Amino acid sequence: MKRKLNFYAGPSVIPVEVFETIQEELLDYQGSGLSLMETSHRSKDFDEVHNATISLIKELMTIPDNYKVLFLGGGATMQFSMVPMNFLQGGRSCDFTLTGAWSRKAYADAEKIGKVNIIYDGADNEYTSLPEVDSLSVNPEANYLHITSNETIGGIQWKDWPTTSVPIVCDMSSDILSRPVPIEKFGLIYAGAQKNLGPAGVTVVIIRDDMLEQCPDSLTAYMNYQTHAAKNSLYNTPPVFPIYAMKLVLERMKKLGGLPAMAELNQKKAALLYDTIEKSGGYYHSPVDQKFRSDMNVVFRLSDHNLEPKFIEEATLQGMVGLKGYRTVGGCRASIYNSMTYEGVEELVNFMDDFTQKNQ
Amino acid sequence: MKRKLNFYAGPSVIPVEVFETIQEELLDYQGSGLSLMETSHRSKDFDEVHNATISLIKELMTIPDNYKVLFLGGGATMQFSMVPMNFLQGGRSCDFTLTGAWSRKAYADAEKIGKVNIIYDGADNEYTSLPEVDSLSVNPEANYLHITSNETIGGIQWKDWPTTSVPIVCDMSSDILSRPVPIEKFGLIYAGAQKNLGPAGVTVVIIRDDMLEQCPDSLTAYMNYQTHAAKNSLYNTPPVFPIYAMKLVLERMKKLGGLPAMAELNQKKAALLYDTIEKSGGYYHSPVDQKFRSDMNVVFRLSDHNLEPKFIEEATLQGMVGLKGYRTVGGCRASIYNSMTYEGVEELVNFMDDFTQKNQ
Repeated sequence: MKRKLNFYAGPSVIPVEVFETIQEELLDYQGSGLSLMETSHRSKDFDEVHNATISLIKELMTIPDNYKVLFLGGGATMQFSMVPMNFLQGGRSCDFTLTGAWSRKAYADAEKIGKVNIIYDGADNEYTSLPEVDSLSVNPEANYLHITSNETIGGIQWKDWPTTSVPIVCDMSSDILSRPVPIEKFGLIYAGAQKNLGPAGVTVVIIRDDMLEQCPDSLTAYMNYQTHAAKNSLYNTPPVFPIYAMKLVLERMKKLGGLPAMAELNQKKAALLYDTIEKSGGYYHSPVDQKFRSDMNVVFRLSDHNLEPKFIEEATLQGMVGLKGYRTVGGCRASIYNSMTYEGVEELVNFMDDFTQKNQ
Repeated sequence: MKRKLNFYAGPSVIPVEVFETIQEELLDYQGSGLSLMETSHRSKDFDEVHNATISLIKELMTIPDNYKVLFLGGGATMQFSMVPMNFLQGGRSCDFTLTGAWSRKAYADAEKIGKVNIIYDGADNEYTSLPEVDSLSVNPEANYLHITSNETIGGIQWKDWPTTSVPIVCDMSSDILSRPVPIEKFGLIYAGAQKNLGPAGVTVVIIRDDMLEQCPDSLTAYMNYQTHAAKNSLYNTPPVFPIYAMKLVLERMKKLGGLPAMAELNQKKAALLYDTIEKSGGYYHSPVDQKFRSDMNVVFRLSDHNLEPKFIEEATLQGMVGLKGYRTVGGCRASIYNSMTYEGVEELVNFMDDFTQKNQ
């Protein structure tokens, strides 16, 4: 059986070695006589998995001791609620950068809870570019600055981070662990797992202690980050299997050399794909400002838009799935997260060159 | 490899056939060339799984057309927040029955958001009994009456439902699909999956249309049931794998004869265990009022409490895990959810008889 080349924007590619380990351990987790999936979250077996997963994230991302790593449910979308509920009540305000569909959703929720200043809105460039970090004017009284590090739909990605006295709260769902980041700039990072970290169903939250202290007691239990931090994310039953699968993905990442190796691989894959687009003599083109092109989601169009359905169909027939662009943007998109191999991208660019030849 | 007999309170036993199907389909879901876990939640393959799972719940529970079935994250604990956020703001009130640890947690959250009348509190009997349904005096102006159908820690279970003009909101986490229930009495049912339905990570919400209409627009997206109902729980990425595994569990339930068969099996298993306790001449005893003993969580003590650690240890050595009672209650607890076989309970009672003989 030849497995497909998976360019889905998320849930997306999970390494085959990870599936093989899951398969092997599924009915009998390391000699326990049970699947980990049917084992109490208070058991020694799960406790080890849970803590090892937290440790791996801390180690891989070089997270200082004054941060907690939490595992929650509900996806990044639930964080669009939790962040303002915890940090925007009682007359506080925050600054927002509107850079595409995801930051706009986070903004819509924040605005329902507190005062939000938009300090950048990419509507004028149709969200195909980002601001220079030095050009941002952050309100010093803002309680935080919200950034979406990578926009999967527009295919843009922050390459640098603003220097500001205000903590950055960052939706890192689509590029977490794809490159090293200066953790100390962030008050809170959140990310759904289903792009770079494993299967859907768990959301990673990395929160600094001073942010934790702000969470108001008036919040109900689940909505308060303190509840989860105080119990090491075991206040209630966590999503056991997604955490376990994430651990396997993280172990593989570590073995491959951690974030420096991931960043190198991701840049190499993205460069190969963007170069193919640039060198196609206009056959393909990227609508995205060159400075901010995403290493994770490569959005491109065929100059002859009418050929796009054929391009996607033929790619699918050759075993490359998920290349259709998001409906609001159209065209094509190749999502090439951490677990997509360089060879996978090579297959795609070979197909692109081939398609060009045959469809001049 | 002999698999253990799993008496954990949750996450708990999942049928071995379910694991075998997962194992078989893990790397290549039904010839798609991908794992379902790495497939877009917008794909045809996942869409079929998602809708089939909803249909199975509707069919098995005989849910009328004026209800929606939703799949959310965060566990039942997150519903402790969502229910009052949706139905208790703006000066509304609800009635609560306090029957143990879980209803108390739901109550603590509800009280942070609106007015809550306690119409029953089992504190006096240390949560070992429940009220007769006819004895409950529900406030007609209450927006809902909250009930926890089964308390896993105390081992008590409602056997009948109040007749009231007020919709019942029910935490059915630990006995959903274990028996038929009169759906029309409920305005909303919620249940974490990890007891009767499959692995942890997905929460089932069954909500009546008139309740949906009440959800206030002021809520942020994820917290509003309408958001999920309008998009068939695909507003954001759902917990793909837990939903898929739940589908397999539900398919098996259907094949076994649905809820009437489940109820019969569950009553038979519980009767075997409670009878063993009753007939032990006081060697074992149940602290729970006979009328309300749970078919799901059988809480019991040895008359000689000092023997309990030995009992649990020897059971573990014989391959029966999860028999330790909850720390606040002590003693022993056998959780015998839908997927625990009758033969499994027979093994346990044989062990109990044997232990009695050897430790008089």
